Amino acid sequence: MTWHVNILTLFPDMFPGCLGQSLSGKALEKGIWSFKTVNIRDFGEGVHKSVDDTPYGGGAGMVMRADVIEKALLSLDAPGSRKIYLSPRGKPLTQKLAQELSETPEITLLCGRYEGVDQRLLDAHDLEEISIGDYVLSGGEPAALILMDACIRLLPGVLGNMETPVEESFTENRLEYPHYTRPAKWTAADGKTWEVPAVLQSGDHAKIKAWRAEQSENITKARRPDLLTTEATEKKKRNTEY
Amino acid sequence: MTWHVNILTLFPDMFPGCLGQSLSGKALEKGIWSFKTVNIRDFGEGVHKSVDDTPYGGGAGMVMRADVIEKALLSLDAPGSRKIYLSPRGKPLTQKLAQELSETPEITLLCGRYEGVDQRLLDAHDLEEISIGDYVLSGGEPAALILMDACIRLLPGVLGNMETPVEESFTENRLEYPHYTRPAKWTAADGKTWEVPAVLQSGDHAKIKAWRAEQSENITKARRPDLLTTEATEKKKRNTEY
Repeated sequence: MTWHVNILTLFPDMFPGCLGQSLSGKALEKGIWSFKTVNIRDFGEGVHKSVDDTPYGGGAGMVMRADVIEKALLSLDAPGSRKIYLSPRGKPLTQKLAQELSETPEITLLCGRYEGVDQRLLDAHDLEEISIGDYVLSGGEPAALILMDACIRLLPGVLGNMETPVEESFTENRLEYPHYTRPAKWTAADGKTWEVPAVLQSGDHAKIKAWRAEQSENITKARRPDLLTTEATEKKKRNTEY
Repeated sequence: MTWHVNILTLFPDMFPGCLGQSLSGKALEKGIWSFKTVNIRDFGEGVHKSVDDTPYGGGAGMVMRADVIEKALLSLDAPGSRKIYLSPRGKPLTQKLAQELSETPEITLLCGRYEGVDQRLLDAHDLEEISIGDYVLSGGEPAALILMDACIRLLPGVLGNMETPVEESFTENRLEYPHYTRPAKWTAADGKTWEVPAVLQSGDHAKIKAWRAEQSENITKARRPDLLTTEATEKKKRNTEY
């Protein structure tokens, strides 16, 4: 089955972008996923094909019109599709949510530009708001590429056996342990020599497992204590539930 | 002054990608920012130009070699550049950090693939790890595009006066209030009519300001209570300080 993504955008040429190469590019060629862009501009008003207007109540920026976006949305004729608006006001994208979206046969992504879209469009068509992080982007398109990338690598057949996402970051609310490869002894350009931790060269699988678990725990404590607390776990749960 | 980004990658063709269009594309043409890609493959070992090897201690995936990446890094001859490794183990990218990076004249982004890079490279060259969110991507390249996009729009001259980022999400730890534009009365395709909230059409600037502040507060409470608590503020502080 093909995982399908509809994208409503003012910049259809941004797709597939970086997703046209490497793993996701090969998966696109194989038909593991597919996409369709709809240019919102095609549904604009008047000779200038205007898609936005000034905000009621004043303020900087322009707001994308509900009527224009609705026409673009309905042109898809995809009533069963899960509709998502990429927005810094949305619930945070997590690995769990990416997994869930990758198991949804068809999703529709609305990419906003300028100050955003008229709230009534989101309410009338019950769009789910998702944020990829606590920062502001030039538009929804780069965020859409991220959401798609996170989902595509989880689709069956995309990652080879060598790359199966078993023990990776976030699957157990822990940051990953450090990795090392050849050469075992490496002399950096400044002349300092660095060795791979002895335990990893020991061949003692139980010790290696324990060492890695400890490293994961320590780095999570140091960098992301929020991932460890029950409160954070509950908070994450709430964020993915509203 | 031009904001410069060096990118170490196995997929140089992914750049500028979506950043070659729209606002960031125009800014690139104007010389407000510039970038240089270094293909890590060019520094690979042997006839196959190998850049990775199996991890010490076992496990799935391949790890990028410290010696190979060091050669790629040193080829830049950019000792003053702020060196960043895009990684889900890093400190979270925030609007504040994006602002800080946009004020740094030159940054170097290392994009990992596979299971990541040898930890010794990160330690030896003191790379700062930054994460764009709690999810796993196919590689560092899409994350690099996001980090760059968040920075580029903050560079002087990129956004017009109409789009000045004054009252936007995260600048005050609050999610943004909803936006509305014409038509004031909109009948959706299902026949339901939606009106713009009366207060926004009132012309009473004090009332509008109060309404928007209340909406911001309410949506932040409902969706992201973590942004409101002092604990979260401290946590965010820690995250950007280690």
